Parts: sequence; structure tokens; C-alpha cells
Amino acid sequence: MRMSLGESMIVTLFGESHGPAVGALIEGMPPNIELDLEQLIDDMVSRRPGSGLASKRKETDDVEIMSGVHAGKTTGMPILLLIKNEDVRSKDYSFLPYQPRPGHVDHPINVKTEGAADLRGGGSFSARLTAGLVAASSISRKVIPDEWVVEATIGALGGKEGEDGIALAEQARKEGDSLGSRVDLVISGLPVGLGEPWFDGLEPALARALMAIPAARAVEFGRGVRAGEMRGSQHNDKWGKGMTLSEGADGALGGMASGAPIRVRITFKPPSGISLPQKTFNEISGVMEELAIKGRHDPVIAPRARPVVEAVARLVIADLAIRGGYIDE
Amino acid sequence: MRMSLGESMIVTLFGESHGPAVGALIEGMPPNIELDLEQLIDDMVSRRPGSGLASKRKETDDVEIMSGVHAGKTTGMPILLLIKNEDVRSKDYSFLPYQPRPGHVDHPINVKTEGAADLRGGGSFSARLTAGLVAASSISRKVIPDEWVVEATIGALGGKEGEDGIALAEQARKEGDSLGSRVDLVISGLPVGLGEPWFDGLEPALARALMAIPAARAVEFGRGVRAGEMRGSQHNDKWGKGMTLSEGADGALGGMASGAPIRVRITFKPPSGISLPQKTFNEISGVMEELAIKGRHDPVIAPRARPVVEAVARLVIADLAIRGGYIDE
Amino acid sequence: MRMSLGESMIVTLFGESHGPAVGALIEGMPPNIELDLEQLIDDMVSRRPGSGLASKRKETDDVEIMSGVHAGKTTGMPILLLIKNEDVRSKDYSFLPYQPRPGHVDHPINVKTEGAADLRGGGSFSARLTAGLVAASSISRKVIPDEWVVEATIGALGGKEGEDGIALAEQARKEGDSLGSRVDLVISGLPVGLGEPWFDGLEPALARALMAIPAARAVEFGRGVRAGEMRGSQHNDKWGKGMTLSEGADGALGGMASGAPIRVRITFKPPSGISLPQKTFNEISGVMEELAIKGRHDPVIAPRARPVVEAVARLVIADLAIRGGYIDE
Amino acid sequence: MRMSLGESMIVTLFGESHGPAVGALIEGMPPNIELDLEQLIDDMVSRRPGSGLASKRKETDDVEIMSGVHAGKTTGMPILLLIKNEDVRSKDYSFLPYQPRPGHVDHPINVKTEGAADLRGGGSFSARLTAGLVAASSISRKVIPDEWVVEATIGALGGKEGEDGIALAEQARKEGDSLGSRVDLVISGLPVGLGEPWFDGLEPALARALMAIPAARAVEFGRGVRAGEMRGSQHNDKWGKGMTLSEGADGALGGMASGAPIRVRITFKPPSGISLPQKTFNEISGVMEELAIKGRHDPVIAPRARPVVEAVARLVIADLAIRGGYIDE
Repeated sequence: MRMSLGESMIVTLFGESHGPAVGALIEGMPPNIELDLEQLIDDMVSRRPGSGLASKRKETDDVEIMSGVHAGKTTGMPILLLIKNEDVRSKDYSFLPYQPRPGHVDHPINVKTEGAADLRGGGSFSARLTAGLVAASSISRKVIPDEWVVEATIGALGGKEGEDGIALAEQARKEGDSLGSRVDLVISGLPVGLGEPWFDGLEPALARALMAIPAARAVEFGRGVRAGEMRGSQHNDKWGKGMTLSEGADGALGGMASGAPIRVRITFKPPSGISLPQKTFNEISGVMEELAIKGRHDPVIAPRARPVVEAVARLVIADLAIRGGYIDE
Repeated sequence: MRMSLGESMIVTLFGESHGPAVGALIEGMPPNIELDLEQLIDDMVSRRPGSGLASKRKETDDVEIMSGVHAGKTTGMPILLLIKNEDVRSKDYSFLPYQPRPGHVDHPINVKTEGAADLRGGGSFSARLTAGLVAASSISRKVIPDEWVVEATIGALGGKEGEDGIALAEQARKEGDSLGSRVDLVISGLPVGLGEPWFDGLEPALARALMAIPAARAVEFGRGVRAGEMRGSQHNDKWGKGMTLSEGADGALGGMASGAPIRVRITFKPPSGISLPQKTFNEISGVMEELAIKGRHDPVIAPRARPVVEAVARLVIADLAIRGGYIDE
Repeated sequence: MRMSLGESMIVTLFGESHGPAVGALIEGMPPNIELDLEQLIDDMVSRRPGSGLASKRKETDDVEIMSGVHAGKTTGMPILLLIKNEDVRSKDYSFLPYQPRPGHVDHPINVKTEGAADLRGGGSFSARLTAGLVAASSISRKVIPDEWVVEATIGALGGKEGEDGIALAEQARKEGDSLGSRVDLVISGLPVGLGEPWFDGLEPALARALMAIPAARAVEFGRGVRAGEMRGSQHNDKWGKGMTLSEGADGALGGMASGAPIRVRITFKPPSGISLPQKTFNEISGVMEELAIKGRHDPVIAPRARPVVEAVARLVIADLAIRGGYIDE
Repeated sequence: MRMSLGESMIVTLFGESHGPAVGALIEGMPPNIELDLEQLIDDMVSRRPGSGLASKRKETDDVEIMSGVHAGKTTGMPILLLIKNEDVRSKDYSFLPYQPRPGHVDHPINVKTEGAADLRGGGSFSARLTAGLVAASSISRKVIPDEWVVEATIGALGGKEGEDGIALAEQARKEGDSLGSRVDLVISGLPVGLGEPWFDGLEPALARALMAIPAARAVEFGRGVRAGEMRGSQHNDKWGKGMTLSEGADGALGGMASGAPIRVRITFKPPSGISLPQKTFNEISGVMEELAIKGRHDPVIAPRARPVVEAVARLVIADLAIRGGYIDE
């Protein structure tokens, strides 16, 4: 099995939630990109659990750069980013694989690997692995020009924007439950034409990468599901002087940047790990039994997914830009 | 630029709307797969324009198999599927590249290729190229077992299901306008565990392939955008006796088949090619000018996209199945 | 099975010796490369059988360009090159698969595909498929600058250079036999640094591509097998003023161009198809039986392999150049 | 830049000679392969410097397995092998990049990366990185059946076999010089048909991987360069009862295993790093100057390359076997 993203700049994840380490290997990074270690720390902190709406697992997330960097700059060779695991509590997972958790990967991966997978904490499917994604993306920030802006914000929590959403999430947590959410992504400033035709166009490439974030359930571009109810005369955005488009337009046409901002909405399901007891099948007893999942849970995903969405989008853009010759390899 | 889908069984598209031919090259097809030419004809007919809600371009879509087949069976070698173009009316596109059509790829691809692209009829971005996808998918139908069912239906036209939707679409056509739509896809019967972790999981792989269909604007899995408003205790589907899931559950967990059906909804924007005059920039005159696009237009995409959705989903499943060793290469 | 060469500019072969066609699909070709149809004809003629030392099969080798070219220039989209087969005499191969030819692919491919492969004339393994390679290489000639010179010459026939070699080959043909040979390749003018580290370095990439030419048995770089008998003080070539190297030096160091010419020698075995009767196993009779292979044979490979060596080397260089950003994609 | 080998089981190298670590990431390793840590230690020792004919650098080569292994078995997820660097003496390389060493990668990689590469000790091009290859190959030993035997021996040192060769090498070392050499590789027991057509056939795939070993200069298959002087009637090996071939035959036909052993000879140039002073260009002084390379040198490559040749060949075979469905993924 592979866990790789990109064609020209390739990020490969590795690691398990309760193994020695997680991390990422970056191939195809151009040489002479300066490292910004403060930015790296900031980026790692942004996805770290511990805030009001995140789980209590303590992750210092110190990123060790084991290769591909010399004298504060990238050398062009593969960059290995290693993040050692600490604060792992493996004893929490003794019920596996006999009573797999609802909404989790436990059962499918156990079947797929004929029992070989490390199931503790979700193994290689844990959101813990997004630490490698965020680290890799941070290292590659300066690959793309400053004018290409990638920005994600919390769109909604439980269907509500803003303060109301936070209250809803707090309420869900108190009740041992969890809440669905949405992250909104805007990418602007891309040169017209960036992106590849068909299967590696901006939307297909972004959709693939974003849907790989654990718990993502929908990806919408431009007007998204609302486009299904519109007429062409409404939806079409006319080219203006200098071949510009209005803000409402699709930011990509045929997979390529049109010059307008690309707007994406990513919907996340409510986290499957909830404290409320759930009655689910136990292979040993042969009957449905209550399962109360101990441990640390996020009540809602958007706050922690937000920096991951940004990271993933930045990696996709950098890869397409190198691939298309928009920036030097 | 590449137009390839798949890792183990790879389908590469080629061709231009107004060039000599379109088609697909299939690599990695297992040997000894029997050809079903009647099925091929049926599949090609299903995406052909000419029905009430499709454009008037006549496409006989005769598929010539130029390699990789011997004595009625695949040989395991690359299969070239060639579909010659007929009934092309290139004179319709003389306004390009000076006055690019709203909502079309004309301007981005012209910029990207510094004027080299063949813009007539959308060139390589034309929906005409889905003929190659449908042909390739038809040839590979028997690669996957009969119990793995891939089925797409028209979900909605202009936001309405069924007859009301058809009336809306007819109305739009009469007014020289077009309408958004939705296709619903269900994949069932997959073995538990099929799919790869992270970026090549079932949802990421399907999202990428489906978002590459021209005019796709959103992809939703399971409960889709509605999951953003749910609670975990509602959304979680409990494992039942024999590790089965209810029909309402997510069909994939962590990118791998869970045993339940995978439900996908794909939203298409209203076709950009409308007869209603649109005021849009003309590079030669330097001002906004009315552009009336002559030629053949589909008023709504779902009816013609439906077989393409099925084709693309089948190719993704076959590729993941070969890659994961679920079927012999 | 795949038959693809390259990472950034990818050439995929297809076709069978006795099927409808052979050819190549080129992906990743930059746009705006002008077509030189006369050069294409010249290149196709150069590998065509019919000269004194080649087989009598008549191949007009008309290359049909089915996509990716518009107004005499490449568009950047996939280019399909189709070469229809004519003058095929399939009845010659009725002894297969029961009495496979010595030194031919008949038996391994028959076993591999469980009988599905088209064995006539070597099927997809026929030297006939090099027509696609030569055509693809011809189309991509102008991708690389004129100063990058790729030139192959006949090195030796039966161990002898020049006229003596030709006489030896003629003698072998008269006796119904065949002769080994060597092609010498020189690549010069590459920018210092072109090439990738380790497995995609100039030597690994060239060795792979050259060893794929049917009947190749050895690839030597620089001083080749003689380097095994030298001392470092002899073999090392010192850097001169302006970091230049002498002509004797290795043209690549660590997989990257050093500035000196790259010298390669490719040894081809004597063609396996000979008229002399050979006693070999017949599965039907269950005993060794004489097999006299009728049809058209080349007595020696170098003359026809020479343009193929050049074609293959040019494709490798173009791919590495695009990949490394030495020329625009 | 990438440093990856394989399509289905992919080994990617990383690290620099004088950086924090070297190692390899293995993707596509099947699950449930048992780890043999004693074998791993044996394999690492076999390539370690310190014997009579190797340099004095002490490398303990402790391999840390950071992911993809659980309960003593592979999980199917990416396996990260980390080998920390110790005993690095970076001060030896202060003459770089101004006076690049003859026969070394210093100058090309410095030009290629515009000064960004870590040149100390050869950086990412150091033979030190073969530690990652040997470790990865050791982990994957049990992927292929025991009957598939991959064995490399020292073929010749300075053109002489056995004891005479060793004496020659010792003599060269005493004189501050080095010697060319050859490693012989035999692969036997492969199932008929293993291998892919054309560019990923056994010979092309092996040639590519073997030519990537630092200092390799020629790869010969079967009768190698001698085939260039033979006649077809001599060279052809007839199929015997049960479609077997004699020992003298080519082990691969058309890129696929024929059932006979595959014999390969790899020639290595004399190591470029010699103690004898060499007059070579110095960019600072602008004239040719003597350069005496201090540090640790191997006088001949074959003894240390032997286990690397085996490792690389085993990886190629495992990859082709998984890819062709000969063993479960």
C-alpha cells in the first residue's frame, strides 16, 4: 500500500499512531528553498490538539529534518521529516479487532491485511499522520510565490456559522457526542492556465487530496451543489476587460486556473469516536454489546482540519506548478 | 500534459473534438478477458447525443480496436481504442481565441499553450473525449466480478427529481438556456478492504475521477453535505452480526470498502454553451460584445453524464482491485 | 502489462506484428514544437527493412498522426502515432505455440498469458514495434536543442569493423545463419548536471532503454568492460580550465552530464531467426524435431538497430531534460 | 530529484554522507512478512567497510525500523528504515566546490543545484546510501520464495580472478592507487514468464538498477559482449523436453524469464578516490593544482559492491513479481 501525493513534488506519509514515529518524505522539492523553522513551529502548533475543541493528547510534534537540507536550504534531494511519537496509551485498544468501533477503519483494514495491521489508535489511518502533511507543506511554502494565496477558514459547525457553531460543539462534547462541520478554502492569485487537463486538473487533484483527509465527506467547487439548481445564463460568468472574471466565477475551467479565485467547501462528518456508549457487534461474544470508547476525542473536526486543508491544497498547487513548468524544479 | 487515470490498469485519453479521432489506450488490462462487442455498442449508444435532452451532433462512435485483442480476447498488451471523428463543423469556431466563451476552457488553454491548442469545439477538453472513457470501461467490464455492481441514475434536473425535472430542462432549451443537474451513483458488492489508504482510497480516487468529468462541480459521499449538520451518535453506523452495516452507512471507511454500498452524488453545473446571447469581452474590438454560440448544445448534463459516471467509477474500481490483488492482473 | 518509457515525456508502444497496427502514444510533449514531416519520412526509412542486410518484409510505415498536432505544431496534448500493418503473412506461424522457436519470446509469453498472447511474428515483442519508437523520437527531435547531438554508428559486425564485417554478414546470410553485432552511440553537448541521481541517472536510464531493444545483450559506458582492468590513476580524468574534461572521460558522473561526450556501446546477439534447420522440442510429438523457420530474416541486427538506438537515446535525453527543467515543458 | 526504484514495491533512498542519517522508505511491501533481524544484521555487516579491501570508515549501520512493522511482521504500510550517521569527518572536504575531485560527482551536482547540494563525502551520491538499499532488500527477502535464488560473486579484480586479483588490489592500495573489478550475478528458479515486456523486462529493469550502483560501467547479460562475435546457430539455445533450456542459454527472452538462469556481469571502474596526488583545476587559483584526497578509500569496488548487487537484483525481482501477480501484494 502507498500513501503518496503528487507527481513532480511527491509527499509520502509513513507511520502509525502508536508506533515509534510518523512523518513524511518529500521528493522533487526544488533546491535552494530557504527553511523557515519558526513558520514550521507555527504550522505544527496550528494543527496540534489541545485547544477547547480538540482532544487532550499532548503532541509536541518536534519535526526532525533528517535529509535534504544543508546550510539552511533545501538541496533538491529527498527530505525526510521525522516526528517521534510520545504520549501513546496503547492499552486503550485491547478491544480490537474483536469489537471494531463504529465509523472507524478498524474492521476493513484488519480484513485487508489479514490481521497484520497495527490497529491501535487507528494505526496509519490516524489523524496523527496529518502532522507529516502539515510539516511537508510548511517546508514547501516558499516553493510557490507569495502572490499565490491559499487560505482555509472554519465554514460551519453543526450547520451554523460562528459563535452559534462553537456553542453547539461544546454542547455536543458535554453530552459525549460529536458534530459535523465544514471548512472553506480559497485559492487565489494563480497564473491563468495552471493545472492539467482531465484527471489532474485543479478540481480533480484538489478533490482527491481533500477527500483523503480523514472524515471528509463532500467537496464542492465554486457554487457546488447549488450549481445543480441554476441556469446557464445565471451561472456563466462573462469575461471582462483584460480577460478577467468576477469573484463569483469558477476559479478553474477544464481543470486550469481561470484567473478568478478557486472556492472550495469541504464537509466533514461528525467524529466517529464518541464517549456515548454504542451498541455494536463483538466477535468474541457473538452479540451486540455496548462499547464506550475511552480516550481523547475531538468533538468537531473543522478546527483541526483547517490547517490540514490548507497544507494539502498548498501541496497540490506546488506539485501542479512544478509539473507545468510555472516554477523551476 | 497527460490525460491518464489509474495506476495498475491505466486508461489514457487522446484526441480533439475536431481532429481526426478520439480514443483511449488501456494498459495493464489482464489477459484472457473476453470481448463483448454487443455490450460495447450498447455502452457507446448510451452516451451518444441525439436524445431529446442532448445535442444534435451525430456520432456513430464506431470503436476500432487496433491492438491488444486476439481471437476475441484480451492479450494483456496495451489496447488501443480508436474512434474516428465525423460530422465536425469547424467553421463554427472562428471567433476564437479572441472572444472566448463564458464558462469554457478556451481562454485558459490558449494561455497555457501559448496559442498552440486546438480550440475548435473545446479541443481535448470536449465531452467528445468521454467516448474513449466509455469504450475503455466497456472493454474492462468483465475484469471485475458480476457481484460488484456499479450503477448510476439521474438524480435531479434543475433541483427536481423525475418528470418535473425533464419539463424544466425542456423549458430551458426552448429559452436558449441550460440547467444544472445531479447524477447518483451506487457501488455495491465490493469485498471488505478493497481500496488503498489515504490518497488512493475509494473516496479520493472516485472524487478525482468524477470531478474530471466536464462540468462536475461537487462530489458527495454517503450523507454528503448533510453530514456537516449531524451528530456522531446519529451518523455512526453500528456493526451488526457478521460485521455488516446498515444501508445508511458509509460504504468506505479510511478509503476501504466497508461492505455497505458506496453512495455518491455528483452535481453538474448547467452547460456553459447556451444559445442566449451573452455579452463578453472581445480582444480584437477591445470591448464587451454579444456572443451567440451557434451549434449543438445539451440543455442539461446528467442524461449524457450518467453513463460516463458509471464508466469512470468502473475503471476506478477495476484499477484498485488489480492494484490490491483482489483480481488477477 | 505496460510498454512505456519516460516520466515527464512518456512514450507508450502498442500493437502486434500481425495485428491491425503498431504505433506509439506520446504524453508530455511540449506545445508549439513544429512538425518536420520530411524528417519523419527520413527517419522511418532509415529503420525500414529492405537494404542488403535486412529482411524482405515490405513496410511502407506511413505514420498517421491522429491527435495532439494542430496547424503543423504540437498542441501539448497526447500525440497518437498510428502505423497500419500491411504485408503480413500470418500462415507462417502455425507451428506455434507447440514448437516454440529457439531464442524467441514465443514460449515465455505464451506461458505468461496462459495462451492469450498473439504469437504471430513475435506479437508485441516484434522489432516491428520499434517503428513506433522511431516515429515518436522523430516527432520529438526539436524538443531538444540542436547543440545536443545524439549519434549512433555501426560499431562492429561479427567482431569486425567496416567492410570485413559486411562480408561476414553476407556470408552468414548465404549459409542461412546470422551474426552478432555492436552499435556505438555518442551523446554530446548536454548541459553539465543534466540527469537525475541514482536510478534515473543518465547511465541507468540509457541502459534500461537500450537493453529494451530486442536482442540487446550488453551496454557499456565510457571505457566499459575495459574499465575493469584499469587503475584509478589511469582512468580518472582531471578537470581542466573552465571545468572541462578530455574526450576520454566519462560523460556522466553520478548519473549527471559532466560536459564530456557520453560514449555507449550496445552489443546485439545474432538474430535468433535463422533459416538453418534447428532441432527443438515439439510439444505435440513430444520429441525434438527439426524446425526450419521460413520467412524474412535479418542476418545481423546493427544496421537496423542503429536508428533505433538513436531514437531511444533521444527520447531518454528529452525526458530527462524536461524532468530536470532544462527545457520548457 | 527522486531516488526511487520499483513500480509496485518501491524503495526510495534518502540521506547524505555527512548529514544526520541515510535510509530507505519501502512502499508496497506485502503484509504479514516476518522480520528476520539476524539476517538484517548479517546483510548490513556484509556491505560494511573495514575488511582488508575496504575503507576504514566505521559504520555500525544500526537500522531503526520506524514504521510499517508490528508484532514482528510487516503491516503492508510504508516501512521507514533509518540509519543514523556516525564517524563523519566533514573537515576533509573544505576544498569543495572550488577544486572538484576527478571522477567524482562534485562538479556536476554543484552546477545542477546552483550550489545547494551538500558535497561533503559525495552527499547523496555516496556509496554510503547503499546501506539503505541493502537494508530494504534484507527486509524484503521473504517476499520472494526460497526457490528464487539471487547470488552475486566477485568476478574479477583488475582483470584477474581469485588470489591474483587480491594481490593486485593490495598492490594498488599500497601505491595509493585503485583497481577496476567485476561482479557476477546469477538469478535462478524464476517462474517462466516473470518480467514485463519492453522497458520493464528483466534485462532493462536489472540494467537500470545495476547501473545505478556507484562506479558501474557495463552490464552484460548471458554471453554479453561475446555475443557480438557469435553466429545464431551457435548462440541459439534449443528448447528441450518439457520446454527446458541448457545452462548456457539466455535466462530471459523478450524481458521474461525463460526458465534458465539469468547470468549478469557488472563491471566497476577503479574507485576515483585515490591517495596519489592528481593535478586538477582549482577555480580559486585559476590553474591546475595538485589535489591529494585524504580520508578513507576502497582500493577496489567489487568486494563491497557484491552485496549491493545482490540487494538491488532482489528488489527488482520482488517488484516485478508483485507487479506481475506472481506473488501476493
